Amino acid sequence: MLEWLKKTVFEQNMRLMESGLVVLTWGNVSAIDRESGLVCIKPSGVSYGSMTADDMVIVDPDGNTVEGHYRPSSDTPTHLYLYRAFPSVGGIVHTHSTYATAWAQAGKGIPAFGTTHADAFYGEVPCTRALTKQEVESEYERNTGAVIAERFASLDADAIPAVLVKNHGPFTWGKDAEYAVNTAITLEEVAKMATLTCRISEQADPVDGYLLEKHYMRKHGKNAYYGQSDDALK
Amino acid sequence: MLEWLKKTVFEQNMRLMESGLVVLTWGNVSAIDRESGLVCIKPSGVSYGSMTADDMVIVDPDGNTVEGHYRPSSDTPTHLYLYRAFPSVGGIVHTHSTYATAWAQAGKGIPAFGTTHADAFYGEVPCTRALTKQEVESEYERNTGAVIAERFASLDADAIPAVLVKNHGPFTWGKDAEYAVNTAITLEEVAKMATLTCRISEQADPVDGYLLEKHYMRKHGKNAYYGQSDDALK
Amino acid sequence: MLEWLKKTVFEQNMRLMESGLVVLTWGNVSAIDRESGLVCIKPSGVSYGSMTADDMVIVDPDGNTVEGHYRPSSDTPTHLYLYRAFPSVGGIVHTHSTYATAWAQAGKGIPAFGTTHADAFYGEVPCTRALTKQEVESEYERNTGAVIAERFASLDADAIPAVLVKNHGPFTWGKDAEYAVNTAITLEEVAKMATLTCRISEQADPVDGYLLEKHYMRKHGKNAYYGQSDDALK
Amino acid sequence: MLEWLKKTVFEQNMRLMESGLVVLTWGNVSAIDRESGLVCIKPSGVSYGSMTADDMVIVDPDGNTVEGHYRPSSDTPTHLYLYRAFPSVGGIVHTHSTYATAWAQAGKGIPAFGTTHADAFYGEVPCTRALTKQEVESEYERNTGAVIAERFASLDADAIPAVLVKNHGPFTWGKDAEYAVNTAITLEEVAKMATLTCRISEQADPVDGYLLEKHYMRKHGKNAYYGQSDDALK
Repeated sequence: MLEWLKKTVFEQNMRLMESGLVVLTWGNVSAIDRESGLVCIKPSGVSYGSMTADDMVIVDPDGNTVEGHYRPSSDTPTHLYLYRAFPSVGGIVHTHSTYATAWAQAGKGIPAFGTTHADAFYGEVPCTRALTKQEVESEYERNTGAVIAERFASLDADAIPAVLVKNHGPFTWGKDAEYAVNTAITLEEVAKMATLTCRISEQADPVDGYLLEKHYMRKHGKNAYYGQSDDALK
Repeated sequence: MLEWLKKTVFEQNMRLMESGLVVLTWGNVSAIDRESGLVCIKPSGVSYGSMTADDMVIVDPDGNTVEGHYRPSSDTPTHLYLYRAFPSVGGIVHTHSTYATAWAQAGKGIPAFGTTHADAFYGEVPCTRALTKQEVESEYERNTGAVIAERFASLDADAIPAVLVKNHGPFTWGKDAEYAVNTAITLEEVAKMATLTCRISEQADPVDGYLLEKHYMRKHGKNAYYGQSDDALK
Repeated sequence: MLEWLKKTVFEQNMRLMESGLVVLTWGNVSAIDRESGLVCIKPSGVSYGSMTADDMVIVDPDGNTVEGHYRPSSDTPTHLYLYRAFPSVGGIVHTHSTYATAWAQAGKGIPAFGTTHADAFYGEVPCTRALTKQEVESEYERNTGAVIAERFASLDADAIPAVLVKNHGPFTWGKDAEYAVNTAITLEEVAKMATLTCRISEQADPVDGYLLEKHYMRKHGKNAYYGQSDDALK
Repeated sequence: MLEWLKKTVFEQNMRLMESGLVVLTWGNVSAIDRESGLVCIKPSGVSYGSMTADDMVIVDPDGNTVEGHYRPSSDTPTHLYLYRAFPSVGGIVHTHSTYATAWAQAGKGIPAFGTTHADAFYGEVPCTRALTKQEVESEYERNTGAVIAERFASLDADAIPAVLVKNHGPFTWGKDAEYAVNTAITLEEVAKMATLTCRISEQADPVDGYLLEKHYMRKHGKNAYYGQSDDALK
């Protein structure tokens, strides 16, 4: 059942590891089959070295395991919340990648300091508020999704496909799992560049709005001219 | 004799090297057989590239070599002290990994800035006091163990399985050598994140107590729900 | 047609990737055949892993595709502008390499802090001014070339074969594509060293003029004595 | 002639490259045959990828090529000066390794912040003064050796086998080329740790004298007990 979904989720989890974004068993990638509403996700705490596509876990929208011999990632309720909150999203990634996590630990959003950022994110990558004691003690992982959604109440999750959860780390998303992993890779690089930018000049300013607009739109707007048409890539 | 112990100590020393935590011949992993009280440890100053399981050295609780053609690590008396001081520990790791050593050189404990830290350490990773002139000049390696034990007089070594020895570097431990190596990898990553966090925001605060509690307990508490049961992993 | 050009442009794009200067599909290398005026460049947004020499695109001086089944890099008009502005240049590289991009985001040129810098660049690597709203909204990529040329109005592009475009990233160039890739590698290393130098000493000064002169000239002057004669290397 | 010397110099140059201390064709290793006074060194500006043992160059104490089809490293007169100044030295390494070069560019010696440093260097790794205009313009490479020797007038080159040349980069040395490469690797790691230590605590102090003494002597003193006897390693 849903073999294609298990295959892509497995492959993108392995890409996450190969990209150097995860340590030991940390991090997880999921993807959703919007038709059935079923979500496929990495099992909890299983080593990347021994994992196979068959170890991926399929859960229903309430988090009940539908298929799989392992327990799903403990972050599954966060993923499920985000799939409900952001209906256009097809894949979600969570990592503790070094630089993005450092910004999350500092409780600060990542400013759009240049075109590398603007190519992927249409503005600052925001940081959530801290969860309250009550939010942590009961349904913690679900509430992590809720504070992310709260932070995006007045933001466009399609145009800024990433967030930092305060004192925790980044989540990224996109139309599918591959896109979400690409965004996780870009976010870590952008977080490193922003750290260095602030060190080189304490007065560094975010890019001008028109440069942000130009770069985001040349890659993602309806008149985008970066990259190849899907036909050309076949 | 104790071939299983030599095999695991050899394998975990090699993992230490493969994880990029050691340079040249630096660092060492040991493990104890609690039944006999014998400890197996890396030989002193032998290159990782040429080492075999047969080169591991077995010593008795007083540090006398029981088996092995090499001299044991010069840090052996520190390991032996810690096995006596922390009876639940089965494996110990010592490295000079870059970021953890920098915190040790700065003489500061590593604050629990986020959930990456809280997943492994139930609070700040402490730094010892400096050894006195007398402690250095006589039985230096034994006394290194003693100042660690002194630092943990009012701390739980099971819940915070790592320490920084001032001006020296980190030691980590756990139920077995594999656990102790995982902790050494986590400690270095957490030390790097903490360095960056302080750079991004000089006012960064440690995590709230309830978030520390939640993350540590979901992985290590008696109701832990992170990872798989031992049965599932077979 | 121009198979040699496609081969060298492909190989140097792959070297760029192997050198760790690019992430995902970022970055591009081009080269010019000065006889015909034709320029060969990487296709836009195609992954390094699947690219072949046959995927390189050949464009005429106005940017019209003369050969190739893909759209050329979206930065092609910048390359074309620079080939017109700097007649001795045979190859151009654009990256978002981490440290050089951080200096560009900070809006600062990279000072010549040492002989590593002086071996490749005869003075500070300059940063351009920001493009105006109008320059960004119309013919953005061509205007990127124009602000670079403007910045070099009183500088020698042969002696300082690199620039930082403000809020964007570095361009490097040279007699051929291989030289331009070497310069991109050197620039990133020099940018990293400069970042660290400023951190170690806030009062660090650029090298004395006579040391800059000596190192640049022993490698590039008419009495250069670094390296081998072309004959010796055959 | 002196095939063993060419073999070891080639192997240690390759180790330098494999250790990540050099970029492109930068860096060089030499060794001396004290009996004949002949020195073997890497050729100037030849790529590590294509180099063979046969490409190494042998020069006499005046720098005349005795054997080899390439020009020797342009830094050869510095090496020759140091072999004359430090009679116990058998091998010399020069790199532009990132962190050590940043300290050289900042014009500061590397303080002995911990035991990692003390295991290899019996005190601060010093930085030379800048060369004068005259010293740069005439016999520059020989004078680089001279300012190093001047800096060691009241230091023991056997106990501190490394130096930073101001605005340039590090030289390391030892009883043979392998030792000098090990020291270059250690110096870069120690330079990185020192950079981080100063960032974590601006008030970080060098180690106490008795700890420096203990660590240096347990590895290098006449009662050294780190490592194995030469017999054991056979």
